[in-house]
Amino acid sequence: MAGKVRIGVIGAGRIGRLHTENILHSIAQAEVVSLCDPYVELSDSWARDLSIKQLTNDPEEIFRDSEIDAVLICSPTDTHAAYSIAAARAGKHVFCEKPIDFSVVRIQEVLREVKASRVTFQVGFNRRFDVHFRTLRERILEDDIGDLQILKITSRDPSPPPLSYIRSSGGMFLDMTIHDFDMARYLTGSEVRTVFTRGAALIDMEIGAAGDVDTAVTLLQMDSGALVVVDNSRQAVYGYDQRIEAFGSKGQLAADNVFPTNLVHSGTAGIVGDKPMNFFLERYNDSFIAELRSFVQSVSAGCDAAVTGTDGYAAVLVGLAAKESAQTGRLVEVPAVMEE
Amino acid sequence: MAGKVRIGVIGAGRIGRLHTENILHSIAQAEVVSLCDPYVELSDSWARDLSIKQLTNDPEEIFRDSEIDAVLICSPTDTHAAYSIAAARAGKHVFCEKPIDFSVVRIQEVLREVKASRVTFQVGFNRRFDVHFRTLRERILEDDIGDLQILKITSRDPSPPPLSYIRSSGGMFLDMTIHDFDMARYLTGSEVRTVFTRGAALIDMEIGAAGDVDTAVTLLQMDSGALVVVDNSRQAVYGYDQRIEAFGSKGQLAADNVFPTNLVHSGTAGIVGDKPMNFFLERYNDSFIAELRSFVQSVSAGCDAAVTGTDGYAAVLVGLAAKESAQTGRLVEVPAVMEE
Amino acid sequence: MAGKVRIGVIGAGRIGRLHTENILHSIAQAEVVSLCDPYVELSDSWARDLSIKQLTNDPEEIFRDSEIDAVLICSPTDTHAAYSIAAARAGKHVFCEKPIDFSVVRIQEVLREVKASRVTFQVGFNRRFDVHFRTLRERILEDDIGDLQILKITSRDPSPPPLSYIRSSGGMFLDMTIHDFDMARYLTGSEVRTVFTRGAALIDMEIGAAGDVDTAVTLLQMDSGALVVVDNSRQAVYGYDQRIEAFGSKGQLAADNVFPTNLVHSGTAGIVGDKPMNFFLERYNDSFIAELRSFVQSVSAGCDAAVTGTDGYAAVLVGLAAKESAQTGRLVEVPAVMEE
Amino acid sequence: MAGKVRIGVIGAGRIGRLHTENILHSIAQAEVVSLCDPYVELSDSWARDLSIKQLTNDPEEIFRDSEIDAVLICSPTDTHAAYSIAAARAGKHVFCEKPIDFSVVRIQEVLREVKASRVTFQVGFNRRFDVHFRTLRERILEDDIGDLQILKITSRDPSPPPLSYIRSSGGMFLDMTIHDFDMARYLTGSEVRTVFTRGAALIDMEIGAAGDVDTAVTLLQMDSGALVVVDNSRQAVYGYDQRIEAFGSKGQLAADNVFPTNLVHSGTAGIVGDKPMNFFLERYNDSFIAELRSFVQSVSAGCDAAVTGTDGYAAVLVGLAAKESAQTGRLVEVPAVMEE
Repeated sequence: MAGKVRIGVIGAGRIGRLHTENILHSIAQAEVVSLCDPYVELSDSWARDLSIKQLTNDPEEIFRDSEIDAVLICSPTDTHAAYSIAAARAGKHVFCEKPIDFSVVRIQEVLREVKASRVTFQVGFNRRFDVHFRTLRERILEDDIGDLQILKITSRDPSPPPLSYIRSSGGMFLDMTIHDFDMARYLTGSEVRTVFTRGAALIDMEIGAAGDVDTAVTLLQMDSGALVVVDNSRQAVYGYDQRIEAFGSKGQLAADNVFPTNLVHSGTAGIVGDKPMNFFLERYNDSFIAELRSFVQSVSAGCDAAVTGTDGYAAVLVGLAAKESAQTGRLVEVPAVMEE
Repeated sequence: MAGKVRIGVIGAGRIGRLHTENILHSIAQAEVVSLCDPYVELSDSWARDLSIKQLTNDPEEIFRDSEIDAVLICSPTDTHAAYSIAAARAGKHVFCEKPIDFSVVRIQEVLREVKASRVTFQVGFNRRFDVHFRTLRERILEDDIGDLQILKITSRDPSPPPLSYIRSSGGMFLDMTIHDFDMARYLTGSEVRTVFTRGAALIDMEIGAAGDVDTAVTLLQMDSGALVVVDNSRQAVYGYDQRIEAFGSKGQLAADNVFPTNLVHSGTAGIVGDKPMNFFLERYNDSFIAELRSFVQSVSAGCDAAVTGTDGYAAVLVGLAAKESAQTGRLVEVPAVMEE
Repeated sequence: MAGKVRIGVIGAGRIGRLHTENILHSIAQAEVVSLCDPYVELSDSWARDLSIKQLTNDPEEIFRDSEIDAVLICSPTDTHAAYSIAAARAGKHVFCEKPIDFSVVRIQEVLREVKASRVTFQVGFNRRFDVHFRTLRERILEDDIGDLQILKITSRDPSPPPLSYIRSSGGMFLDMTIHDFDMARYLTGSEVRTVFTRGAALIDMEIGAAGDVDTAVTLLQMDSGALVVVDNSRQAVYGYDQRIEAFGSKGQLAADNVFPTNLVHSGTAGIVGDKPMNFFLERYNDSFIAELRSFVQSVSAGCDAAVTGTDGYAAVLVGLAAKESAQTGRLVEVPAVMEE
Repeated sequence: MAGKVRIGVIGAGRIGRLHTENILHSIAQAEVVSLCDPYVELSDSWARDLSIKQLTNDPEEIFRDSEIDAVLICSPTDTHAAYSIAAARAGKHVFCEKPIDFSVVRIQEVLREVKASRVTFQVGFNRRFDVHFRTLRERILEDDIGDLQILKITSRDPSPPPLSYIRSSGGMFLDMTIHDFDMARYLTGSEVRTVFTRGAALIDMEIGAAGDVDTAVTLLQMDSGALVVVDNSRQAVYGYDQRIEAFGSKGQLAADNVFPTNLVHSGTAGIVGDKPMNFFLERYNDSFIAELRSFVQSVSAGCDAAVTGTDGYAAVLVGLAAKESAQTGRLVEVPAVMEE
């Protein structure tokens, strides 16, 4: 594809606006030409400042528009599949936020349609583009730690989302841990064979009453034999805690948190460093830019995305298995990922 | 008790000699007056240098000796119970290396005898006396992190023991992880309710052939609701890896490894610090001294030991449950610890 | 000023190109409309890719151009003063790379002209805009460490520049340490009263033969009474070493190096972290963007620059005093900075 | 010498008692048989608990006692020389606390007498025996950093001593910095050629009124060409700050502070580690034991001490030069150390 990739964004919420601004400020090879949201009038002045030409509340306008090359789907999860399918049928390349859907069957429909339409389809697992985790993977591949035996992922949010969000989130495993499941696949280069998890509502009883957990430890066994343990919390009072340790036959690699500054204060209270960067918009901002830059490059080159629909599908399979394990107290086998 | 505590040591292997030297060099309130070992003649010159009066290959001589106040049982595990019972019946206070026995019934016999004889009985969970972990517990009790929600214990040996050792070790969970199970109880102040574990022989296939694992991740749920995850390896090429993270409603406390020096070298290869202290004799030496100092003080004061027979019993219950979980792939409930 | 600030860049070397690209990619409020260099044809394809309209080898074209609001002077040091004066007389705002000149008298001429022309004049002390050092200053001002007593600046380059560069650099104190002298003024909020330095050519004898040093420790006493010590080296084999410690009556604040990733590898060679970011183009890239953003804002607002001509003047005074101290082995008093 | 080294201790103040207890508890090859202090009755019960046989207020009793092999001189500085000479004449080996004396002539007398009497004479520069600094030196000697170019010593006390102490201390350079001067010689393996220092009373004006400073930065140039910078403060509110960085042609080695535990707390206030060990009795306790163990071994082997009278002499020469530089504001050359 010659020239800039012309993008239509569906969904003008937090993540839709983030991607839009990142494209306009940092990705010279793309432009946002259209924005669609049911309440698009609320985005009017914001969009005007950014010189976005078209605002609409009808996604069909985007699918129909022959000037648009690619669509970013940043709307609520229950619309992801339908918009993905419609966009693919219209020949648009698709970047879809995670998860594609909560239903395995529905995801399979999306993947079939994407395949048939021969468009590029990328899922929003932005953490794969974080420089620390990306380098961690490269060094594992370079055999810095030999055979990977144990992977430990710490993933804790600074504070829980509103209950209303939790109720439609699909539960912690499909909303939050799904990033860690993808990270497990990304770093081990292997599929998840079994899942066992123990979770509890230790932070907010209301979360428990809503049928969800806020604290969990999940144990994965990979096809490679590697063991992966993920610990999650919806509330780390010291901030967003995102660390990974990979342990293998030749040593260990650890990725620590990222901090606003490296200043250390020595005083009567002790030796005090910064808290980690507060939340994902800050902590992972560079990775959000990098994932879209990668998407734009894949679209331009006409090749597969760096994070495929199968990646999105596999992570949901693990999330559903984790949910089942949490409910039954049993080890759950994860179905094999179809390799179409 | 007035005067020095007079101690007889049974077992002149690595740990028996370590305790003996620690008492003689660092514990002014005690003395080692007798040493018993089936091959005691091999310890002749070593014992003479230390001015130990009596050497014998018959433990009965120690039990019979009215000059002896307390016995240290450092012989192989299959003799712990019998010697503990004989010593208690003879009115000797007992320090017994872990584990007391692999049989729950047998441990119960020991505890009954100890109770009936009203002697002090301490089990060798030395890590409770490590200044870092001890302070970690104190700070948890001081509410530094609020309610404990997740405890993560990393416990990796530098290299596997000989296969002969492994074959009589009772398996990794009763030999190695048992320390971590005790640490979980010590730090959470709660009993283990359920155990789930996944293990594998990823380091040495011979270990697998011997029916044991060398790599495992174990997930405990405590009566308090707290989740505990332990990851073990028999081989960490960078040395003895002993770290703990405690996460709670008010924050996190982490105990890092301990290093020979704090020197950091910046060179063309990167920024390089020391590997952790090599193995338990070095890393935990101060805790070995402190546990015996505590034992001697308990004996002198005529009070209960800081680490009781019940502690030894409870850790074996968890170890057996872990073994079962590893074999069945199921979550295993741990029987309630009898409170006699 | 309404609309974008239109900038002409003089000098298409490393720093001139860096600033140009930063403006075009990251500073929406400005544009580069003209580029001047004696060998401007060498920049032809680079400039075309960036859509820079005008290329010239005659700076007068820039001064004459009524479309141009501001000039970036990135040419060799011996042209800084003449171009600054010419630009100011033409009513252009000026951003001038450090140092303004090696001659105090000449700098005074520049400052007089700038004042008379009422243009904004900023000197390129980019490190003031580094987030770590900037936050360090803010926290000093917020009284985090009380009265500042000792400031320690480590400033070491990864490897020496070519001898040809060194010969026209004005010597290490005016070329390299000048940044640290500015940092001393910036962080203490006080002027330098006395300078004492000891330097030597310990890395490359040719540098000594050229009349310069490659290793030095410099001690400043500030008007406030605070003591500042700077250690410099032209060659740190582990990379660009840029650290600051500020010690005061209420504690200490330390700014460590900045690293490409936070990965730590534990292996048989030890516990190994990344080397610092390699050199100033990487390490200080964000600060280069921030200093120009600040310049553009000052120009737009019609106010004084965040780093003034007086700042540029004061740092040269200290540099000349350091040079004298190195030559005489004596403590040298720094002349009072004129406050026009 | 066969059997234990029998020691008489002169001075039952803080350091005299520390050494006495260290010998009795940790040095099997020595015993303290006599204690002398003008107010020895104040040490009565303390000495009895330690089973020290003889207490006296007359040092002559110690010099005369043919049972005594060695004398520890822990009395006030103005008695060091006289007691050292008397002990040496009586054929006793001497361990003398630093400094030997404030007078160069008087120190030379001591060294002559020690030489004539052929006794072992050790000066109390305990920091040479600290495991971190000792290993730092070994690694420098093993060429880990190539040619040493810059050495940075941070040496800050937690809080100033009483004014009465300061008045008889010989001033900060001879009381406190003298340890750092010795460390400079120890780590560089070279003599100090020139000294320049800037000091001030920034913490307590009374210290200034007493003619002393409480804050100083001192710059040494060594015979080897290496530059050494020492920064001192009498008050670091976060505790005893004792760090060293050695920078050379092949890299850098840094020795950080030593901490009571390695616990790190992550909470709303930030990421918080322990303050350094509080003061020298804690921080350097292992080195106090090691220096006396070394002394006892030298006495037993009949060889020179690891820290000689010449070392004590050289450090005082530097201290006097620093004092002169502080007073005159000039670079001061240090006289060559006589090599008898």
